[in-house]
Amino acid sequence: MTGVSRRRLFGMTGGALAIAGAGAGAGYFTGRQGEPAQVEPFRGAHQAGITTPAQDRMHFVAFDVTTTDRGELVDLLREWTQAAERMTAGLEAVENGAVGGVAEAPPGDTGEALDLPASSLTLTIGFGPSLFDGRFGLADRRPPALADLPHFPGDNLDPARSGGDLCVQACANDPQVAVHAVRNLARIGFGRVAVRWSQLGFGRTSTTSRSQTTPRNLFGFKDGTNNLKAEDTAELDQHVWVQPGDGPQWMAGGSYLVARRIRMHIETWDRAPLTEQEAIVGRTKGSGAPHGAAEEFAPVDLKAKGSDGEPLIADNAHIRLAAPERHGGARMLRRGYNFTDGSDGLGRLDAGLFFVCFNRDPRTQFIPVQNLLAKKDAMSEYLEHNGSAIFACPPGVQPGEHWGQSLFA
Amino acid sequence: MTGVSRRRLFGMTGGALAIAGAGAGAGYFTGRQGEPAQVEPFRGAHQAGITTPAQDRMHFVAFDVTTTDRGELVDLLREWTQAAERMTAGLEAVENGAVGGVAEAPPGDTGEALDLPASSLTLTIGFGPSLFDGRFGLADRRPPALADLPHFPGDNLDPARSGGDLCVQACANDPQVAVHAVRNLARIGFGRVAVRWSQLGFGRTSTTSRSQTTPRNLFGFKDGTNNLKAEDTAELDQHVWVQPGDGPQWMAGGSYLVARRIRMHIETWDRAPLTEQEAIVGRTKGSGAPHGAAEEFAPVDLKAKGSDGEPLIADNAHIRLAAPERHGGARMLRRGYNFTDGSDGLGRLDAGLFFVCFNRDPRTQFIPVQNLLAKKDAMSEYLEHNGSAIFACPPGVQPGEHWGQSLFA
Repeated sequence: MTGVSRRRLFGMTGGALAIAGAGAGAGYFTGRQGEPAQVEPFRGAHQAGITTPAQDRMHFVAFDVTTTDRGELVDLLREWTQAAERMTAGLEAVENGAVGGVAEAPPGDTGEALDLPASSLTLTIGFGPSLFDGRFGLADRRPPALADLPHFPGDNLDPARSGGDLCVQACANDPQVAVHAVRNLARIGFGRVAVRWSQLGFGRTSTTSRSQTTPRNLFGFKDGTNNLKAEDTAELDQHVWVQPGDGPQWMAGGSYLVARRIRMHIETWDRAPLTEQEAIVGRTKGSGAPHGAAEEFAPVDLKAKGSDGEPLIADNAHIRLAAPERHGGARMLRRGYNFTDGSDGLGRLDAGLFFVCFNRDPRTQFIPVQNLLAKKDAMSEYLEHNGSAIFACPPGVQPGEHWGQSLFA
Repeated sequence: MTGVSRRRLFGMTGGALAIAGAGAGAGYFTGRQGEPAQVEPFRGAHQAGITTPAQDRMHFVAFDVTTTDRGELVDLLREWTQAAERMTAGLEAVENGAVGGVAEAPPGDTGEALDLPASSLTLTIGFGPSLFDGRFGLADRRPPALADLPHFPGDNLDPARSGGDLCVQACANDPQVAVHAVRNLARIGFGRVAVRWSQLGFGRTSTTSRSQTTPRNLFGFKDGTNNLKAEDTAELDQHVWVQPGDGPQWMAGGSYLVARRIRMHIETWDRAPLTEQEAIVGRTKGSGAPHGAAEEFAPVDLKAKGSDGEPLIADNAHIRLAAPERHGGARMLRRGYNFTDGSDGLGRLDAGLFFVCFNRDPRTQFIPVQNLLAKKDAMSEYLEHNGSAIFACPPGVQPGEHWGQSLFA
């Protein structure tokens, strides 16, 4: 029993109807392992894939726009929106795409997700600073908050893993569904966009909902315990969603995505004693509790001292330096993934964290926090930031609209 | 509810007991998504990970042995066996490894799988031709069937993705469990082995049991329909398991693994018409049925002709050229995975198939089949083989034995 596939679904309900009903149908389909194959709504006030409960797997892609024709770019965004909405509903990129079209023409869907349910797929689009360079008449639309990231101490950035005119973050509980979505968007964009870089993440490192348990990063620590959660609606308005008046109106309801490919020197880390690892993080490895507390979700007490008069959470501990108290209350919504991309040619795995965060304004959130971490965080010794990008993710898509319509209006 | 974690399991049952009971306990644990967290037996007549129902995810690693001391290598295999047996049972690499050891010492487990169940993890070891080069006194133990693969037409092999003294194939239904296992084996091997290359596979492309449905590769076609299955015990003895008398006795019950990293030019494929794609494969894309038949598992009729007198399955179709009839009845057990490793710097995804197969004797199975495919297969136009390796996977580990004991005895 393979569950309701995207082709059978289409046959049962008709394309448009299936899309219209899909958003409300979480749990409607049966996945191939007996799990509910949830469908995340594509349209709404905000884009999906930000406060959506973090899915297990990710495929992130950055594109260079190769056309210089604004109309072609808008057409592409319109085509992408149709395909994205269908795929997040568990359908093919286009109706009868893989096998039902004109046999003498290339298929309109690449087919590798034919038998797979929607798997909570979300597709989130973002616009990079370079999109506003004048090619498309957008120079005066660039939000000041879409700032060029500064060079942070220790940065060792690979241009081939950085930047991009556009990005799409595909998250799903089945990696084949996420890869299929990215691949089909790239296919639709042929001649207008080219893949600049892409990154697979095999395991989520954050929770974005109180319904989720905290996963572990490749340092073996629980990650994201104090992350913002979908349930914290007031804090999301304060820290994640661009508010009216924050900058250009087209971004109201959107958010700024910062992505960093952080290689972890896991072989070195693995030779550090447990006490040192825990001092660096500021938490206990097993439970995830902050030093001085007994359980993971206990408040982080930065003032607590041991019997020796020394702070329980060291001055250069990661959680102290990243703490909102240190940054005027600044918080971010993190949505990162563990990666392992083969080996590095020097006998070691090329593994780490693909860090993704969403900010209302990176100039007061990600940038100052990362500046301090890069300078003082004891963890930096074990990290190498080798990819970096920032994107403006526009607000959610309203009925009849396409991705980025507010930008091009 | 996170299910029974490896730490809690240990606390409940005691290490040795848990291992002893684990093999029989498939379905005993509850995974974090409500799935049964199956435990595959580590010991048996054959190694696990060959006829085990193909798990969803894979992390494959090839090592160079850096010590030249035979005793150190044997010690490593003994340590690896202990850790591998524990990890496949859902336990830490060593007892109380991640957080319960000496706080001033590096942890004996890296911790990122602490909260995860066994997830059907299997670990399969293999020995490459270079291990028999004389460093370890094994030159006269090399099986003739562990042949150096010839240069196949079109091969474009990257030495950094090829070869290796040792390999470990880690398969699991949770990729973090597979990555954790490889990483901990590499950690244990520090100073004695170094990672030569590694490959993640995000989606299986074969079934190895009749209980599984056929997955799709990145050409969008069902792959592995006519694969050998665990239920075909007579065929497995004929085509997969080395029989007594086949060569050196230490390999009896083992199998020869061939791995090929096959880049698929998916962007080109996606511009080929459906009829051309189906002619190249020899099957219908939707159902997977061979041409001339209506359903996936129908026999492949290589003699069938259309009303025009032309063969329904083209002369250069993949399934015709790979058919057992074409190769004296030779079959293999395939166990490949889809991969996507970022982009290629030329605007395209670096995606394809990490092909893995198991042979009783590659000289009469993989090698002649691949020779013919490389010369004549219409699919070759869309493929680039850029990684290649062969390994002798010894027989299963008996009680009290370690990996490769028959080789070093």
